[in-house]
Amino acid sequence: MYIPEHFHEQDEAAIAAVMADHPLASVVYQTPELNVSYLPLLRRGDRLIGHLAKANDMHRELADGADVLAIFHGADAYVSPNWYPSKAEHHKHVPTWNYQVVHVHGKIRFYHDEASKRRLVHALTSEFETRTNGTEAWKMGDAPQDFMRDRLADIVGLEIEITRVESKSKLSQNRDEGDHANVMREMEARSHDELAVAMARHRDG
Amino acid sequence: MYIPEHFHEQDEAAIAAVMADHPLASVVYQTPELNVSYLPLLRRGDRLIGHLAKANDMHRELADGADVLAIFHGADAYVSPNWYPSKAEHHKHVPTWNYQVVHVHGKIRFYHDEASKRRLVHALTSEFETRTNGTEAWKMGDAPQDFMRDRLADIVGLEIEITRVESKSKLSQNRDEGDHANVMREMEARSHDELAVAMARHRDG
Repeated sequence: MYIPEHFHEQDEAAIAAVMADHPLASVVYQTPELNVSYLPLLRRGDRLIGHLAKANDMHRELADGADVLAIFHGADAYVSPNWYPSKAEHHKHVPTWNYQVVHVHGKIRFYHDEASKRRLVHALTSEFETRTNGTEAWKMGDAPQDFMRDRLADIVGLEIEITRVESKSKLSQNRDEGDHANVMREMEARSHDELAVAMARHRDG
Repeated sequence: MYIPEHFHEQDEAAIAAVMADHPLASVVYQTPELNVSYLPLLRRGDRLIGHLAKANDMHRELADGADVLAIFHGADAYVSPNWYPSKAEHHKHVPTWNYQVVHVHGKIRFYHDEASKRRLVHALTSEFETRTNGTEAWKMGDAPQDFMRDRLADIVGLEIEITRVESKSKLSQNRDEGDHANVMREMEARSHDELAVAMARHRDG
Protein backbone atom coordinates (compact mmCIF):
# COMPACT_ATOMS: atom_id res chain seq x y z
CA MET A 1 0.00 0.00 0.00
CA TYR A 2 1.25 3.49 -0.88
CA ILE A 3 1.61 5.36 2.44
CA PRO A 4 3.26 8.80 2.61
CA GLU A 5 4.98 9.11 5.99
CA HIS A 6 2.51 11.66 7.43
CA PHE A 7 -0.39 9.27 6.74
CA HIS A 8 1.35 6.16 8.14
CA GLU A 9 -0.85 5.06 11.05
CA GLN A 10 1.17 3.58 13.89
CA ASP A 11 -1.13 4.18 16.85
CA GLU A 12 -2.26 0.74 18.04
CA ALA A 13 -5.46 2.18 19.55
CA ALA A 14 -6.41 3.91 16.29
CA ILE A 15 -5.77 0.71 14.32
CA ALA A 16 -7.80 -1.35 16.82
CA ALA A 17 -10.67 1.15 16.59
CA VAL A 18 -10.92 0.87 12.78
CA MET A 19 -10.91 -2.95 13.02
CA ALA A 20 -13.50 -3.04 15.82
CA ASP A 21 -15.80 -0.45 14.21
CA HIS A 22 -15.65 -2.03 10.73
CA PRO A 23 -15.52 -5.81 11.30
CA LEU A 24 -16.74 -6.78 7.81
CA ALA A 25 -13.30 -7.39 6.30
CA SER A 26 -12.50 -7.83 2.61
CA VAL A 27 -10.37 -10.97 2.68
CA VAL A 28 -8.26 -10.98 -0.49
CA TYR A 29 -6.31 -14.05 -1.63
CA GLN A 30 -4.64 -15.48 -4.73
CA THR A 31 -5.26 -18.97 -6.14
CA PRO A 32 -3.30 -17.58 -8.26
CA GLU A 33 -6.42 -15.78 -9.47
CA LEU A 34 -7.56 -12.83 -7.40
CA ASN A 35 -10.41 -13.67 -5.00
CA VAL A 36 -12.25 -11.76 -2.29
CA SER A 37 -14.53 -12.95 0.52
CA TYR A 38 -16.42 -10.55 2.77
CA LEU A 39 -16.25 -11.86 6.31
CA PRO A 40 -16.86 -10.34 9.76
CA LEU A 41 -13.59 -10.82 11.67
CA LEU A 42 -12.56 -10.06 15.22
CA ARG A 43 -9.05 -9.63 16.53
CA ARG A 44 -8.17 -11.88 19.43
CA GLY A 45 -4.50 -11.44 20.38
CA ASP A 46 -2.28 -12.38 17.43
CA ARG A 47 -5.21 -13.79 15.46
CA LEU A 48 -8.29 -12.80 13.55
CA ILE A 49 -11.21 -15.16 14.04
CA GLY A 50 -14.29 -15.75 11.93
CA HIS A 51 -16.20 -18.24 9.81
CA LEU A 52 -17.53 -18.59 6.30
CA ALA A 53 -20.27 -20.49 4.50
CA LYS A 54 -19.30 -24.05 3.60
CA ALA A 55 -20.66 -23.25 0.13
CA ASN A 56 -17.93 -20.56 -0.23
CA ASP A 57 -15.07 -22.28 -2.10
CA MET A 58 -12.43 -20.27 -0.25
CA HIS A 59 -11.83 -23.10 2.26
CA ARG A 60 -11.38 -25.56 -0.61
CA GLU A 61 -9.10 -23.22 -2.62
CA LEU A 62 -6.70 -22.42 0.22
CA ALA A 63 -4.58 -24.84 2.23
CA ASP A 64 -3.97 -24.22 5.91
CA GLY A 65 -1.11 -21.71 6.20
CA ALA A 66 -1.96 -19.89 2.94
CA ASP A 67 -1.42 -16.12 2.84
CA VAL A 68 -4.43 -13.83 2.95
CA LEU A 69 -4.89 -10.09 3.29
CA ALA A 70 -7.80 -8.92 5.46
CA ILE A 71 -8.70 -5.30 4.74
CA PHE A 72 -10.66 -3.29 7.31
CA HIS A 73 -12.20 -0.18 5.80
CA GLY A 74 -12.72 2.78 8.11
CA ALA A 75 -14.88 5.77 7.28
CA ASP A 76 -14.10 7.94 4.24
CA ALA A 77 -15.24 11.28 2.84
CA TYR A 78 -14.46 13.82 0.14
CA VAL A 79 -12.63 16.97 1.31
CA SER A 80 -13.39 20.18 -0.60
CA PRO A 81 -10.74 22.92 -1.01
CA ASN A 82 -13.51 25.34 0.05
CA TRP A 83 -13.19 24.01 3.60
CA TYR A 84 -9.68 25.37 4.16
CA PRO A 85 -9.90 28.92 5.62
CA SER A 86 -6.43 29.57 4.15
CA LYS A 87 -7.92 29.11 0.65
CA ALA A 88 -9.35 32.65 0.88
CA GLU A 89 -5.77 33.96 1.23
CA HIS A 90 -3.89 32.12 -1.51
CA HIS A 91 -6.26 29.66 -3.27
CA LYS A 92 -3.49 27.06 -3.26
CA HIS A 93 -5.59 23.99 -2.47
CA VAL A 94 -6.97 21.02 -4.38
CA PRO A 95 -9.61 18.42 -3.45
CA THR A 96 -8.68 15.23 -1.62
CA TRP A 97 -10.22 12.30 0.20
CA ASN A 98 -9.88 11.43 3.89
CA TYR A 99 -10.05 7.79 4.97
CA GLN A 100 -8.68 5.11 7.26
CA VAL A 101 -7.77 1.59 6.23
CA VAL A 102 -6.05 -1.33 7.97
CA HIS A 103 -4.27 -4.16 6.13
CA VAL A 104 -3.82 -7.33 8.16
CA HIS A 105 -1.57 -9.89 6.48
CA GLY A 106 -1.66 -13.39 7.83
CA LYS A 107 -1.86 -17.14 7.39
CA ILE A 108 -5.29 -18.70 7.35
CA ARG A 109 -6.38 -21.94 8.98
CA PHE A 110 -9.79 -23.58 8.65
CA TYR A 111 -11.73 -25.53 11.28
CA HIS A 112 -14.24 -28.22 10.36
CA ASP A 113 -14.98 -29.78 13.74
CA GLU A 114 -18.11 -28.72 15.60
CA ALA A 115 -16.34 -27.82 18.86
CA SER A 116 -14.03 -25.31 17.15
CA LYS A 117 -16.91 -23.84 15.18
CA ARG A 118 -18.95 -23.43 18.39
CA ARG A 119 -16.00 -21.67 20.03
CA LEU A 120 -15.56 -19.26 17.10
CA VAL A 121 -19.28 -18.56 16.60
CA HIS A 122 -19.67 -18.01 20.34
CA ALA A 123 -16.85 -15.44 20.36
CA LEU A 124 -18.26 -13.54 17.38
CA THR A 125 -21.91 -13.56 18.40
CA SER A 126 -21.11 -12.62 22.01
CA GLU A 127 -19.21 -9.58 20.78
CA PHE A 128 -21.73 -8.40 18.19
CA GLU A 129 -24.83 -9.25 20.25
CA THR A 130 -23.55 -7.51 23.37
CA ARG A 131 -22.79 -4.41 21.32
CA THR A 132 -26.21 -4.54 19.66
CA ASN A 133 -28.57 -5.80 22.35
CA GLY A 134 -26.71 -5.53 25.66
CA THR A 135 -28.35 -7.72 28.29
CA GLU A 136 -30.89 -8.93 25.69
CA ALA A 137 -28.06 -10.47 23.67
CA TRP A 138 -29.05 -13.48 21.55
CA LYS A 139 -27.00 -16.60 22.24
CA MET A 140 -26.64 -19.96 20.51
CA GLY A 141 -28.58 -21.59 23.35
CA ASP A 142 -31.70 -19.62 22.31
CA ALA A 143 -32.01 -21.76 19.18
CA PRO A 144 -33.19 -25.43 19.16
CA GLN A 145 -30.19 -27.77 19.43
CA ASP A 146 -30.77 -29.68 16.20
CA PHE A 147 -31.32 -26.42 14.29
CA MET A 148 -28.05 -24.98 15.66
CA ARG A 149 -26.17 -28.18 14.80
CA ASP A 150 -27.44 -27.91 11.19
CA ARG A 151 -26.38 -24.25 10.96
CA LEU A 152 -22.90 -25.11 12.29
CA ALA A 153 -22.68 -27.88 9.68
CA ASP A 154 -23.25 -25.17 7.01
CA ILE A 155 -20.18 -23.16 8.00
CA VAL A 156 -16.41 -23.56 8.34
CA GLY A 157 -14.47 -21.83 11.13
CA LEU A 158 -11.30 -19.88 10.45
CA GLU A 159 -8.40 -18.19 12.17
CA ILE A 160 -5.81 -15.91 10.57
CA GLU A 161 -2.44 -15.83 12.30
CA ILE A 162 -1.34 -12.21 11.94
CA THR A 163 2.09 -11.74 10.35
CA ARG A 164 1.98 -8.00 9.58
CA VAL A 165 -0.32 -5.03 10.12
CA GLU A 166 -0.10 -1.92 7.96
CA SER A 167 -2.41 1.06 8.29
CA LYS A 168 -3.09 4.40 6.65
CA SER A 169 -4.99 7.30 8.22
CA LYS A 170 -5.47 10.13 5.77
CA LEU A 171 -6.95 12.76 8.07
CA SER A 172 -5.66 16.19 6.99
CA GLN A 173 -2.63 15.80 9.31
CA ASN A 174 -0.59 17.67 6.68
CA ARG A 175 -2.75 20.82 7.02
CA ASP A 176 -2.16 23.83 9.27
CA GLU A 177 -4.17 24.14 12.50
CA GLY A 178 -6.90 26.42 11.14
CA ASP A 179 -7.49 24.33 8.00
CA HIS A 180 -7.46 21.09 10.00
CA ALA A 181 -9.96 22.47 12.54
CA ASN A 182 -12.39 23.59 9.86
CA VAL A 183 -12.25 20.32 7.89
CA MET A 184 -13.10 18.64 11.22
CA ARG A 185 -16.10 20.98 11.66
CA GLU A 186 -17.27 20.22 8.10
CA MET A 187 -17.02 16.48 8.83
CA GLU A 188 -19.15 16.93 11.96
CA ALA A 189 -21.69 19.07 10.09
CA ARG A 190 -22.00 16.35 7.42
CA SER A 191 -22.46 13.53 9.96
CA HIS A 192 -19.00 12.06 9.29
CA ASP A 193 -18.62 11.73 13.06
CA GLU A 194 -16.17 8.87 12.93
CA LEU A 195 -13.75 10.85 10.74
CA ALA A 196 -14.14 13.93 12.95
CA VAL A 197 -13.30 11.85 16.04
CA ALA A 198 -10.32 10.25 14.29
CA MET A 199 -9.08 13.69 13.19
CA ALA A 200 -9.35 15.00 16.77
CA ARG A 201 -7.52 11.94 18.10
CA HIS A 202 -4.69 12.54 15.65
CA ARG A 203 -4.44 16.25 16.52
CA ASP A 204 -4.37 15.51 20.28
CA GLY A 205 -2.32 12.31 20.13
CA MET B 1 -16.76 -13.76 -5.25
CA TYR B 2 -19.09 -16.24 -3.52
CA ILE B 3 -22.65 -15.13 -4.42
CA PRO B 4 -25.67 -17.32 -3.56
CA GLU B 5 -28.32 -16.78 -6.25
CA HIS B 6 -30.71 -14.80 -3.99
CA PHE B 7 -27.93 -12.29 -3.22
CA HIS B 8 -26.76 -11.90 -6.82
CA GLU B 9 -27.33 -8.23 -7.65
CA GLN B 10 -28.34 -7.70 -11.27
CA ASP B 11 -30.21 -4.40 -11.04
CA GLU B 12 -28.12 -1.84 -12.96
CA ALA B 13 -29.60 1.05 -10.93
CA ALA B 14 -28.71 -0.61 -7.62
CA ILE B 15 -25.16 -1.30 -8.83
CA ALA B 16 -24.78 2.29 -10.08
CA ALA B 17 -26.03 3.62 -6.73
CA VAL B 18 -23.41 1.69 -4.73
CA MET B 19 -20.65 2.93 -7.06
CA ALA B 20 -21.86 6.55 -6.99
CA ASP B 21 -22.42 6.64 -3.21
CA HIS B 22 -19.07 4.97 -2.38
CA PRO B 23 -16.57 6.28 -4.94
CA LEU B 24 -13.44 5.50 -2.89
CA ALA B 25 -12.66 2.16 -4.58
CA SER B 26 -10.17 -0.45 -3.39
CA VAL B 27 -8.20 -1.13 -6.55
CA VAL B 28 -6.61 -4.56 -6.19
CA TYR B 29 -3.90 -5.81 -8.55
CA GLN B 30 -1.18 -8.47 -8.78
CA THR B 31 2.47 -7.78 -9.65
CA PRO B 32 2.38 -10.90 -8.96
CA GLU B 33 2.32 -9.74 -5.32
CA LEU B 34 -1.02 -8.53 -4.03
CA ASN B 35 -1.36 -4.73 -4.00
CA VAL B 36 -4.17 -2.33 -3.21
CA SER B 37 -4.60 1.38 -3.96
CA TYR B 38 -7.50 3.42 -2.59
CA LEU B 39 -8.72 5.73 -5.34
CA PRO B 40 -11.91 7.74 -5.91
CA LEU B 41 -13.31 6.49 -9.23
CA LEU B 42 -16.30 7.53 -11.31
CA ARG B 43 -18.06 5.47 -13.94
CA ARG B 44 -18.31 7.14 -17.32
CA GLY B 45 -19.89 4.76 -19.85
CA ASP B 46 -17.73 1.64 -20.22
CA ARG B 47 -14.91 3.15 -18.15
CA LEU B 48 -13.91 4.10 -14.65
CA ILE B 49 -11.91 7.31 -14.47
CA GLY B 50 -9.59 8.61 -11.77
CA HIS B 51 -6.05 9.57 -10.90
CA LEU B 52 -3.36 8.64 -8.42
CA ALA B 53 -0.30 10.26 -6.86
CA LYS B 54 2.80 10.04 -9.05
CA ALA B 55 4.59 8.83 -5.89
CA ASN B 56 2.28 5.77 -5.86
CA ASP B 57 4.25 3.00 -7.61
CA MET B 58 1.09 1.48 -9.09
CA HIS B 59 1.58 3.28 -12.42
CA ARG B 60 5.16 1.99 -12.61
CA GLU B 61 4.22 -1.57 -11.59
CA LEU B 62 1.42 -2.01 -14.13
CA ALA B 63 1.63 -1.76 -17.90
CA ASP B 64 -1.25 -0.27 -19.87
CA GLY B 65 -3.84 -3.02 -20.37
CA ALA B 66 -3.06 -4.78 -17.06
CA ASP B 67 -5.97 -6.36 -15.18
CA VAL B 68 -7.24 -4.65 -12.03
CA LEU B 69 -10.22 -5.21 -9.76
CA ALA B 70 -11.95 -2.08 -8.43
CA ILE B 71 -14.10 -2.85 -5.40
CA PHE B 72 -16.87 -0.45 -4.39
CA HIS B 73 -18.05 -1.06 -0.83
CA GLY B 74 -21.63 -0.20 -0.03
CA ALA B 75 -23.03 0.11 3.48
CA ASP B 76 -22.93 -2.86 5.87
CA ALA B 77 -24.40 -3.78 9.23
CA TYR B 78 -24.79 -6.67 11.65
CA VAL B 79 -28.25 -8.32 11.71
CA SER B 80 -29.38 -9.77 15.05
CA PRO B 81 -31.69 -12.84 15.21
CA ASN B 82 -33.71 -10.80 17.76
CA TRP B 83 -34.94 -8.60 14.91
CA TYR B 84 -36.96 -11.37 13.22
CA PRO B 85 -40.53 -11.41 14.64
CA SER B 86 -40.74 -15.08 13.63
CA LYS B 87 -37.95 -15.83 16.13
CA ALA B 88 -40.53 -15.65 18.95
CA GLU B 89 -42.38 -18.56 17.31
CA HIS B 90 -39.61 -21.04 16.51
CA HIS B 91 -36.22 -19.51 17.50
CA LYS B 92 -34.74 -20.87 14.28
CA HIS B 93 -32.53 -17.91 13.40
CA VAL B 94 -28.83 -17.10 13.56
CA PRO B 95 -26.94 -13.78 13.20
CA THR B 96 -25.82 -12.52 9.82
CA TRP B 97 -24.44 -9.43 8.10
CA ASN B 98 -26.12 -7.32 5.44
CA TYR B 99 -23.99 -5.50 2.87
CA GLN B 100 -23.62 -4.45 -0.74
CA VAL B 101 -20.44 -4.71 -2.79
CA VAL B 102 -19.61 -4.18 -6.47
CA HIS B 103 -16.63 -5.77 -8.23
CA VAL B 104 -15.55 -4.02 -11.42
CA HIS B 105 -12.96 -5.96 -13.40
CA GLY B 106 -11.10 -4.08 -16.09
CA LYS B 107 -7.93 -3.10 -17.90
CA ILE B 108 -6.11 -0.04 -16.64
CA ARG B 109 -4.46 2.67 -18.70
CA PHE B 110 -2.40 5.57 -17.35
CA TYR B 111 -2.19 9.13 -18.68
CA HIS B 112 0.88 11.29 -18.17
CA ASP B 113 0.10 14.27 -20.41
CA GLU B 114 -1.31 17.42 -18.84
CA ALA B 115 -4.33 17.68 -21.15
CA SER B 116 -5.59 14.19 -20.23
CA LYS B 117 -4.99 14.83 -16.53
CA ARG B 118 -6.92 18.12 -16.73
CA ARG B 119 -9.81 16.31 -18.43
CA LEU B 120 -9.90 13.58 -15.75
CA VAL B 121 -9.46 15.93 -12.78
CA HIS B 122 -12.14 18.23 -14.19
CA ALA B 123 -14.62 15.33 -14.48
CA LEU B 124 -13.96 14.14 -10.92
CA THR B 125 -13.92 17.52 -9.21
CA SER B 126 -17.04 18.72 -11.08
CA GLU B 127 -18.92 15.68 -9.85
CA PHE B 128 -17.77 15.76 -6.21
CA GLU B 129 -17.83 19.55 -5.88
CA THR B 130 -21.33 19.88 -7.32
CA ARG B 131 -22.55 17.20 -4.92
CA THR B 132 -20.82 18.91 -2.00
CA ASN B 133 -21.10 22.62 -2.68
CA GLY B 134 -23.71 23.03 -5.44
CA THR B 135 -23.37 26.44 -7.06
CA GLU B 136 -20.39 27.22 -4.80
CA ALA B 137 -18.45 24.34 -6.37
CA TRP B 138 -14.67 24.75 -6.39
CA LYS B 139 -13.07 24.51 -9.83
CA MET B 140 -9.49 24.21 -11.07
CA GLY B 141 -9.68 27.81 -12.33
CA ASP B 142 -9.98 29.02 -8.70
CA ALA B 143 -6.33 28.07 -8.08
CA PRO B 144 -3.33 30.02 -9.46
CA GLN B 145 -2.24 28.58 -12.83
CA ASP B 146 1.33 27.71 -11.84
CA PHE B 147 0.13 26.06 -8.61
CA MET B 148 -2.40 23.95 -10.54
CA ARG B 149 0.22 22.95 -13.09
CA ASP B 150 2.48 21.74 -10.24
CA ARG B 151 -0.35 19.74 -8.67
CA LEU B 152 -1.14 18.11 -12.03
CA ALA B 153 2.55 17.23 -12.37
CA ASP B 154 2.25 15.35 -9.04
CA ILE B 155 -0.46 12.98 -10.32
CA VAL B 156 -1.03 10.42 -13.06
CA GLY B 157 -4.43 10.05 -14.74
CA LEU B 158 -6.07 6.67 -15.23
CA GLU B 159 -8.95 4.96 -16.97
CA ILE B 160 -10.14 1.41 -16.43
CA GLU B 161 -11.89 -0.20 -19.39
CA ILE B 162 -14.62 -2.30 -17.78
CA THR B 163 -14.60 -5.96 -18.80
CA ARG B 164 -16.95 -7.42 -16.16
CA VAL B 165 -19.15 -6.23 -13.30
CA GLU B 166 -20.22 -8.54 -10.49
CA SER B 167 -22.28 -7.45 -7.52
CA LYS B 168 -23.69 -8.86 -4.30
CA SER B 169 -26.53 -7.35 -2.28
CA LYS B 170 -27.09 -9.22 0.96
CA LEU B 171 -30.26 -7.52 2.17
CA SER B 172 -32.44 -10.13 3.93
CA GLN B 173 -34.12 -11.00 0.58
CA ASN B 174 -34.27 -14.60 1.79
CA ARG B 175 -36.52 -13.70 4.78
CA ASP B 176 -40.30 -13.70 4.96
CA GLU B 177 -42.18 -10.41 4.67
CA GLY B 178 -42.59 -9.77 8.41
CA ASP B 179 -38.95 -10.53 9.22
CA HIS B 180 -37.71 -8.45 6.27
CA ALA B 181 -39.90 -5.48 7.28
CA ASN B 182 -38.65 -5.50 10.85
CA VAL B 183 -34.98 -5.78 9.91
CA MET B 184 -35.60 -2.72 7.73
CA ARG B 185 -37.12 -0.87 10.70
CA GLU B 186 -34.12 -1.80 12.88
CA MET B 187 -31.76 -0.49 10.18
CA GLU B 188 -33.67 2.81 10.09
CA ALA B 189 -33.69 3.05 13.89
CA ARG B 190 -29.91 2.54 13.94
CA SER B 191 -29.26 5.19 11.24
CA HIS B 192 -28.34 2.60 8.60
CA ASP B 193 -30.49 4.58 6.18
CA GLU B 194 -28.67 3.45 3.08
CA LEU B 195 -29.24 -0.23 3.88
CA ALA B 196 -32.90 0.45 4.73
CA VAL B 197 -33.38 2.19 1.37
CA ALA B 198 -31.61 -0.62 -0.48
CA MET B 199 -33.78 -3.21 1.32
CA ALA B 200 -36.95 -1.32 0.33
CA ARG B 201 -35.77 -1.05 -3.26
CA HIS B 202 -35.21 -4.82 -3.39
CA ARG B 203 -38.62 -5.58 -1.87
CA ASP B 204 -40.42 -3.26 -4.32
CA GLY B 205 -38.25 -3.95 -7.38
